[in-house]
Amino acid sequence: MNFDDENVPPENLPETLIRDRTDSSMHFRKKIPVGILGATGCVGQKLIELLKKHPWFEITALTGSEKSQGKSYKDAVNWMQTTLLPEEIGKIKISATEPNIPCKIVFSAVSSDVAGEIESKFASHGYAVISLASAHRMDADVPLLVPEVNADHLKLIDTQKTKKSGKGGFIVAKPNCAVAGLVLALRPLALEFGLEKVHVVTMQSSSGAGIPGVPSLALLDNIIPYIEGEEEKVEIEPQKILGELKIDQIEPYKLTISASCNRVPVTEGHFEVCSIKLKEKASISDIKRAWREFFPPIQELKLPSSPASILHYFEEKDFPQPKLHRDLEKGMGVSIGRLRPCPLFDYKFDILSHNMVRGASGGAILMAELLVKNGYIFW
Amino acid sequence: MNFDDENVPPENLPETLIRDRTDSSMHFRKKIPVGILGATGCVGQKLIELLKKHPWFEITALTGSEKSQGKSYKDAVNWMQTTLLPEEIGKIKISATEPNIPCKIVFSAVSSDVAGEIESKFASHGYAVISLASAHRMDADVPLLVPEVNADHLKLIDTQKTKKSGKGGFIVAKPNCAVAGLVLALRPLALEFGLEKVHVVTMQSSSGAGIPGVPSLALLDNIIPYIEGEEEKVEIEPQKILGELKIDQIEPYKLTISASCNRVPVTEGHFEVCSIKLKEKASISDIKRAWREFFPPIQELKLPSSPASILHYFEEKDFPQPKLHRDLEKGMGVSIGRLRPCPLFDYKFDILSHNMVRGASGGAILMAELLVKNGYIFW
Amino acid sequence: MNFDDENVPPENLPETLIRDRTDSSMHFRKKIPVGILGATGCVGQKLIELLKKHPWFEITALTGSEKSQGKSYKDAVNWMQTTLLPEEIGKIKISATEPNIPCKIVFSAVSSDVAGEIESKFASHGYAVISLASAHRMDADVPLLVPEVNADHLKLIDTQKTKKSGKGGFIVAKPNCAVAGLVLALRPLALEFGLEKVHVVTMQSSSGAGIPGVPSLALLDNIIPYIEGEEEKVEIEPQKILGELKIDQIEPYKLTISASCNRVPVTEGHFEVCSIKLKEKASISDIKRAWREFFPPIQELKLPSSPASILHYFEEKDFPQPKLHRDLEKGMGVSIGRLRPCPLFDYKFDILSHNMVRGASGGAILMAELLVKNGYIFW
Amino acid sequence: MNFDDENVPPENLPETLIRDRTDSSMHFRKKIPVGILGATGCVGQKLIELLKKHPWFEITALTGSEKSQGKSYKDAVNWMQTTLLPEEIGKIKISATEPNIPCKIVFSAVSSDVAGEIESKFASHGYAVISLASAHRMDADVPLLVPEVNADHLKLIDTQKTKKSGKGGFIVAKPNCAVAGLVLALRPLALEFGLEKVHVVTMQSSSGAGIPGVPSLALLDNIIPYIEGEEEKVEIEPQKILGELKIDQIEPYKLTISASCNRVPVTEGHFEVCSIKLKEKASISDIKRAWREFFPPIQELKLPSSPASILHYFEEKDFPQPKLHRDLEKGMGVSIGRLRPCPLFDYKFDILSHNMVRGASGGAILMAELLVKNGYIFW
Repeated sequence: MNFDDENVPPENLPETLIRDRTDSSMHFRKKIPVGILGATGCVGQKLIELLKKHPWFEITALTGSEKSQGKSYKDAVNWMQTTLLPEEIGKIKISATEPNIPCKIVFSAVSSDVAGEIESKFASHGYAVISLASAHRMDADVPLLVPEVNADHLKLIDTQKTKKSGKGGFIVAKPNCAVAGLVLALRPLALEFGLEKVHVVTMQSSSGAGIPGVPSLALLDNIIPYIEGEEEKVEIEPQKILGELKIDQIEPYKLTISASCNRVPVTEGHFEVCSIKLKEKASISDIKRAWREFFPPIQELKLPSSPASILHYFEEKDFPQPKLHRDLEKGMGVSIGRLRPCPLFDYKFDILSHNMVRGASGGAILMAELLVKNGYIFW
Repeated sequence: MNFDDENVPPENLPETLIRDRTDSSMHFRKKIPVGILGATGCVGQKLIELLKKHPWFEITALTGSEKSQGKSYKDAVNWMQTTLLPEEIGKIKISATEPNIPCKIVFSAVSSDVAGEIESKFASHGYAVISLASAHRMDADVPLLVPEVNADHLKLIDTQKTKKSGKGGFIVAKPNCAVAGLVLALRPLALEFGLEKVHVVTMQSSSGAGIPGVPSLALLDNIIPYIEGEEEKVEIEPQKILGELKIDQIEPYKLTISASCNRVPVTEGHFEVCSIKLKEKASISDIKRAWREFFPPIQELKLPSSPASILHYFEEKDFPQPKLHRDLEKGMGVSIGRLRPCPLFDYKFDILSHNMVRGASGGAILMAELLVKNGYIFW
Repeated sequence: MNFDDENVPPENLPETLIRDRTDSSMHFRKKIPVGILGATGCVGQKLIELLKKHPWFEITALTGSEKSQGKSYKDAVNWMQTTLLPEEIGKIKISATEPNIPCKIVFSAVSSDVAGEIESKFASHGYAVISLASAHRMDADVPLLVPEVNADHLKLIDTQKTKKSGKGGFIVAKPNCAVAGLVLALRPLALEFGLEKVHVVTMQSSSGAGIPGVPSLALLDNIIPYIEGEEEKVEIEPQKILGELKIDQIEPYKLTISASCNRVPVTEGHFEVCSIKLKEKASISDIKRAWREFFPPIQELKLPSSPASILHYFEEKDFPQPKLHRDLEKGMGVSIGRLRPCPLFDYKFDILSHNMVRGASGGAILMAELLVKNGYIFW
Repeated sequence: MNFDDENVPPENLPETLIRDRTDSSMHFRKKIPVGILGATGCVGQKLIELLKKHPWFEITALTGSEKSQGKSYKDAVNWMQTTLLPEEIGKIKISATEPNIPCKIVFSAVSSDVAGEIESKFASHGYAVISLASAHRMDADVPLLVPEVNADHLKLIDTQKTKKSGKGGFIVAKPNCAVAGLVLALRPLALEFGLEKVHVVTMQSSSGAGIPGVPSLALLDNIIPYIEGEEEKVEIEPQKILGELKIDQIEPYKLTISASCNRVPVTEGHFEVCSIKLKEKASISDIKRAWREFFPPIQELKLPSSPASILHYFEEKDFPQPKLHRDLEKGMGVSIGRLRPCPLFDYKFDILSHNMVRGASGGAILMAELLVKNGYIFW
């Protein structure tokens, strides 16, 4: 994308984009306009909640289904967040999900069955697309990004054909909500000791299925031992994320994962019971140290959505717990506990992360921040 | 019971109806064929569960939406009952909801927006329609039946025009699920002391909204203080049910009700907090006695679905409770507790009843049994 | 604020109290030392969470039961808050609950059966006691305080005998957790239109019972229609709070309340269904206006724990809801909704407030702030 | 045990034991008297519920803690079952837990910390002790019994020293509640294909912890990833149960198990996610066949508490589920589903069983029935 002089494609960018270009200190005088595709759903709502006071970004466009279009967001949405909908955002008119909305970055929270086409279209029209859907995750030229793990994969953007075509748009994908926390806990171990096998059983919260999602009658006092497509995602996405960038493609990390995914009557927070086999010997204190010292380069950028501390290891015998720890670091932390030997692998431990923040909207915003900081988005 | 020769409309009745007509002792050698309209929903499923071993009735027809029609019930339904779907019922082919299905009685569990027309059509084609929807409840010539309260209202059937036309079909309506338990608790008090005012706050279970009903994300760890149309129903249906049959219409019982209806994260059982003002003075022991001695005439019929004891008063200070008492009398009992003076009315107390059994499918089956026993259904 | 020389009882105040006395602008260079009696329980934990970054107060003493005494707080507590226990607070040694702890204000979160005696003892030793227990609430000379409602009742402090004795200690009581929200919603109506009758049915959250409180097996998928002593409290505390200070005593507000209190499977937030009868006629818009314009004098003090807006009226038909709105204004707001005519009284509406914040720890801290600001606490 | 003539020890056996000894057809004219040690707890209550209409057994003694002794059971218990407490059982006076109670069999539901001594004492006084506690499970001469798996282990009884001493009493232990279902699902696979490794992650219901158990505030909207001592039990009990009786001791089955045990907000039913490695190759259909054809010898005895079908395999992609299937076979069935290849082992699948019935009280009663049928209990 070329923003050198004139470039404000798509052309209908608002006045907010006319800004002083000399400010290189990230203290933008005007904020970067962002749009949300599929803004009335759970993920869209959470994006709005997290973006409403964002220091860099300003919501300038919200899109929705046909029956919402033309309505004000306030009238179109069934707002279910725990903070009030800001008045000025409530007044935004819902647009059609077409690549003519006045912004530079779009967060795509449209449903995965239509996301593939929509996101490609936005990218080909010059938008930076942060995808929260699964459609493009495994595309060879799309980075599957967990900013603290594989920021270097962003180089794949240069290989995307829309990028190459001069239009400048591109797609970056956020992984599955159960994968984000898992990969963060695994990353320091893969780096230090190497990983061979991961056995993971998830207990995923209701919010992961959105609205309407799972009926209350089906989930109250119950467990539903199946989430469509989830186990497949958890078994293949980590290898790509942990993989190595070789010139213009990712060589997946060699790792066998077995995942069993379950829905439990918890509102927020995905809990995962892991057993791992390492390539090299490591003691319990080695592993705790690896987690404690995990400080990827992105941490030095002090991005607005970065947690102060990414991984929290709890020594308490019954921690972490979804209700108590999902909101650590404003939902961007990953909590780990119960590290102990596994009779069948090397070790077992538990992971908790906030599926709506770290695993979805918060993770996506951190991706956008990294893209801006790394110069992939100009304005 | 009268088995007039001509009395086998509609004409496509199955072989099960060719039976020995001499058996007048209610020990039918062949069971009465019944159909369920809207059989794949929650209420339909519960009807099947309760009818599957019914001594009098045999399910011979199940209807469903277009996308289910032609499929076997097993393939069409997402069976969510706690007993297994009987194999022979699983094999029944789903029919269109048209008045040509091979049975005499239909239980209508179609959604209330289409129920009005469908039920009228079935009645006009000679079917006995037991309606679990709200469409016809307040029709002047439709009995709104709680068998233990107003069995005499069945005389209204004779005034229904399809009945008068010679076709023989008719509609009998089951009240709202929160009304059934309430009216049973109020009936003995209305009879003995007279009722002037009822203030009721409900805490209704998730199953009352069916599937998909309330999303789990909306109801887990939450209360939803609104159920569409519910307060209006609770405020007007009891007067009709408690009303007096005057020749060919019901004179509503004079009673002012204020209802506040709430959804709570409970799977089954509607809980109601009541305050009442009586017309005549009554002591606490008078009221308990009235409840204890409540023995309406229907109890002498010993119908298959009648509870041995209709009302259970608990002396425990913290009873009744949905989880503990909803299944009393196989879900057909009504539990009452905490009778004590009310500073603003005369007394307050709590009521619990099973919304899916007493308040829906079980109540409807008891209605059908009463209709058969009282000679309203011939075959 | 008056910093008289002698005013540092009890004598073992820590070095933190030696401060520059010239700073009268409320920008304390050193914070006011506070203690928490019964610090390991739910209420004590929440007090710590809310006080840990408090601009005026600093926790200098924590007391606990015999088995905790001498341990560090971290070792003694089963910390169950959603933020981490601050390290420096974790290191505080648990003291015996005796009036020799180094602080000026004590928040009493001891259990109500022992609170009466303990609180009196602390008051007689010169401490300002903010009581979260029920023991002294109805004492004639103890203010039962909701800061936005009856700040003027603090004058009662002067009548307390320990106060008069020159020791300077006194007790101020926080009302029952279900009363706090109720009284705030009622206050503007009482002021403008007068209140005659209030009928309230509560659905109270699990946290109101603390730990161990209600067993999970008893509350999951259930309602428990009884909370010991609760209905009595809800029926008498509001009259005192809304009452008028006459020289040295409170004349209770004339009002009849009927309360039915229930425990529901919700983690936090007390929900209350109210019907009211007013003394004077008022329209729906009159009432909404009264709520909207409620701006008691305390709001001008801009105390650290004061909500920006005390009452939030929601126009949405199904709001407020515990999960969505309990945290409004950091838990210090009161949410109201569904105002509509009541067939038996004048109006009915729903109230929600956070029982652990507004109804307990947050309310108590606001009381302490008001005491400081109004000059009742010297140091 | 020798009951030929004199022996009715303990001596205070009631008249119910004087019976016609000629009836060998198991149609007892009088029922066998049984006692319950620790009768007021959750497990004790469930035992009563399951025994109240038992065809063979009659409850003649209930014991409890000091504060309950001398009270009628009705007054001592906080009855929390979903059926009403039978009046005649409510009248039984609570005895001290001493080996002088009038019965032959005792079900021990006392807490595990005191169970060891108490159970030994009862055995040494001639009682047949069915232990639901963990104290004696791993004793070399105590059968750890799942009747459908290792009925032959009952021969160990002959080696128990109280047995050998001539007193005739003995102890038989029921395994951990999470083990019962697991072992039943594993048994046919161990028999046919051999088992090498089992990786199991449990999601256990609240009732497993009894009352008070886990506080509701701790478990609502949460997962607690720790249950004291549970993982150790799940990792060692199956080997004993699946082991082979060698003359007078059990040779444990060679099998490595890794267990991670979690508490989830479900009322009843333990759910387990398993991965297994077999000794011999087996296809998915081989395994399903092994489960389907599992018909251990005990099934031919048609004991009163035996399920008609022990194992239910569900082909539905999201079954079994605790709420839907825990009550199959009156809680004595074990539900299995989702059999599929595991990338790290051979296969993975899910198991569900009712922890209070199959895993506790129901399993214990089936044990007692087997003991009677096999001649270990005379009367």
